[in-house]
Amino acid sequence: MNVTLCGRTGHYRTVTFDAKSNSVLLIEQRLLPHEFKIVATKNFRETARAVTDMVVRGAGAIGATAAYGLAQGARSFRGRNLKKFSAHVAGVYRTLADARPTAVDPVNAMNKVRREMARGETVAEKQALALAAAEEFANEDVRHCEEIGKHGVKLIRNGMKILTHCNAGWLAFVDIGSATAPMYAAQAQGKKFHVFCDETRPRSQGATLTAWELAQQKISHQIIADNTAGHLMQRGEIDMVIVGSDRVLGRTGEVTNKIGTYTKAVLAARHKIPFYVCIPLSTIDWDLKSGLKIPIEERDAGEVLGVWGVLADGHHPAVNQGRAYVRVANPTSGARNPAFDVTPAELMTGIITPAGIFKPKEIWSRRKELGFMD
Amino acid sequence: MNVTLCGRTGHYRTVTFDAKSNSVLLIEQRLLPHEFKIVATKNFRETARAVTDMVVRGAGAIGATAAYGLAQGARSFRGRNLKKFSAHVAGVYRTLADARPTAVDPVNAMNKVRREMARGETVAEKQALALAAAEEFANEDVRHCEEIGKHGVKLIRNGMKILTHCNAGWLAFVDIGSATAPMYAAQAQGKKFHVFCDETRPRSQGATLTAWELAQQKISHQIIADNTAGHLMQRGEIDMVIVGSDRVLGRTGEVTNKIGTYTKAVLAARHKIPFYVCIPLSTIDWDLKSGLKIPIEERDAGEVLGVWGVLADGHHPAVNQGRAYVRVANPTSGARNPAFDVTPAELMTGIITPAGIFKPKEIWSRRKELGFMD
Repeated sequence: MNVTLCGRTGHYRTVTFDAKSNSVLLIEQRLLPHEFKIVATKNFRETARAVTDMVVRGAGAIGATAAYGLAQGARSFRGRNLKKFSAHVAGVYRTLADARPTAVDPVNAMNKVRREMARGETVAEKQALALAAAEEFANEDVRHCEEIGKHGVKLIRNGMKILTHCNAGWLAFVDIGSATAPMYAAQAQGKKFHVFCDETRPRSQGATLTAWELAQQKISHQIIADNTAGHLMQRGEIDMVIVGSDRVLGRTGEVTNKIGTYTKAVLAARHKIPFYVCIPLSTIDWDLKSGLKIPIEERDAGEVLGVWGVLADGHHPAVNQGRAYVRVANPTSGARNPAFDVTPAELMTGIITPAGIFKPKEIWSRRKELGFMD
Repeated sequence: MNVTLCGRTGHYRTVTFDAKSNSVLLIEQRLLPHEFKIVATKNFRETARAVTDMVVRGAGAIGATAAYGLAQGARSFRGRNLKKFSAHVAGVYRTLADARPTAVDPVNAMNKVRREMARGETVAEKQALALAAAEEFANEDVRHCEEIGKHGVKLIRNGMKILTHCNAGWLAFVDIGSATAPMYAAQAQGKKFHVFCDETRPRSQGATLTAWELAQQKISHQIIADNTAGHLMQRGEIDMVIVGSDRVLGRTGEVTNKIGTYTKAVLAARHKIPFYVCIPLSTIDWDLKSGLKIPIEERDAGEVLGVWGVLADGHHPAVNQGRAYVRVANPTSGARNPAFDVTPAELMTGIITPAGIFKPKEIWSRRKELGFMD
């Protein structure tokens, strides 16, 4: 996406790789919208930690990060012993797969890298194939988002008010984004529309990342508390909901996404408001047979009990501009913090994929064209 | 309620009146849970501002504040001219009624004070009657909450997990609270249960006030993001929802409450989880014929774009402990901030009143016993 910093506009991908230093380069998303900074992770453990700590987050973005991280780990191996190399790569894979358990993109991305590596005969060949496959995953992620935009744009009519939850934008992918792809395509076609960004507590990705992206793109938008969409739907102020996903079950059509997505789907169904989920093909899980089996990451209670922000000038005499964590909640209370939820197929109008728009339950019957491998 | 400060326990009402200084005494709720402080408003304009700025908030608490504020305004009148007095009181009434437009308790409370004042023949008599009526409103609020507890406690079974939204506790009333009354009564009976407190963005009343109250009472509880209850309901982790209300329409059974309540009612209905609303009789609006006619207060965008909290030691080098507003959202984005929503009658299991538990649509047929006046 194009980012304008200090009056200059540049094009950025959220995740790239520097082969020379064997580093993954990531936009430090925890600093946005207050600071734009690119950080390098110098080995696969640092890369995994960047995923766990949410320096980088979002389905496609952590998919590409895991793919690069696997290549990075493979490339750090010294020697020619294929057996040792294979054990090393298996360890790298596990470390990266465990970094965030709910998403399936990292696993699908790394499986793609491993399949390509299998074609090599020497360690050096496998290392080169790994990086090429990771680059190909990243490029494919961009192409998929473009295709999602082409299909989804047809659903956006002039004057529409669209709700989105969390960030399934450029920052959640390598470029363009999934849920934002139809919006960016609609803007390119000159359509006018307004986006409500759910704040998305506890980590505020809607208020920080999606709002920042839409502001960069000059798309009309407002932030709302996560409590507010129900009221707006009731008053006829939301025409469509578009979100992304961290894992779509190919067999059942169930959609895992940021906590709160299920709630918005229930509300949309009650109000007969179309609810769409945008995904690249790497977000489809072809194995799991039930949404109840998706591991739901439970994150630190501190995320719920407080929030990160920037101290506003004048509000506190001691500090002008500095990023700070404030404790909001009663200090003697604890919190539950599941990071994701699962939305059943019947609550969604359609899944917007690079191959077209499908009913959630249609995915299984279309599995061949959607990249399912036996 | 009993509050323990520095190891000492005292009993406090949230709103009281000091006749000598003609001041309303309020617990400064914006400082909780970080600081416990009682402030005095010295004239009716300061009292109205304390309501608008949410020094005091919650249906019964702002009802009592408005009643005291009207008495305070009446008592500040100098002279014996009944016509001038009457015009003065009308101005006080309007100022207090406009302080927060969505709630009906202030209007009902002030109407009660005005009816009592009508019995006086001189300014001095009317002033004395005003204060006595305000005191009676506050005492009645406490009795009503006790009665709500007696009825509601029967619904709480051992081991239950109860969700509540915002704060309809002691702090939202003069004492005891509405939604918390059945919980406090159940605790007194030795029942064990767990409460999930919705954080309740944008003003975090659940995380700050309800959690603090429950911690003071040693009731098992956890804070959750407003996005989380849907997921917990889906996994069978919530057995009942209990909330308060700022205005219940006697004619339709519609319930106005803090933004997000409607969403929780929709979720509860989907999951067949009982959903109860606790109110004293002063929360019933006998006039309005449709929830669409309830004025929904739209508050400042800054509430959504940031949050107040306490800087945690170590997180920011310049400050150790100080209350601060942090801007969370993208600085070039705006927000919508409706403070309340309206839940239709069919989504609620029952309304717990001091006179018993009723179906929302039953209220009108019971209007005589619930205090309706022609």
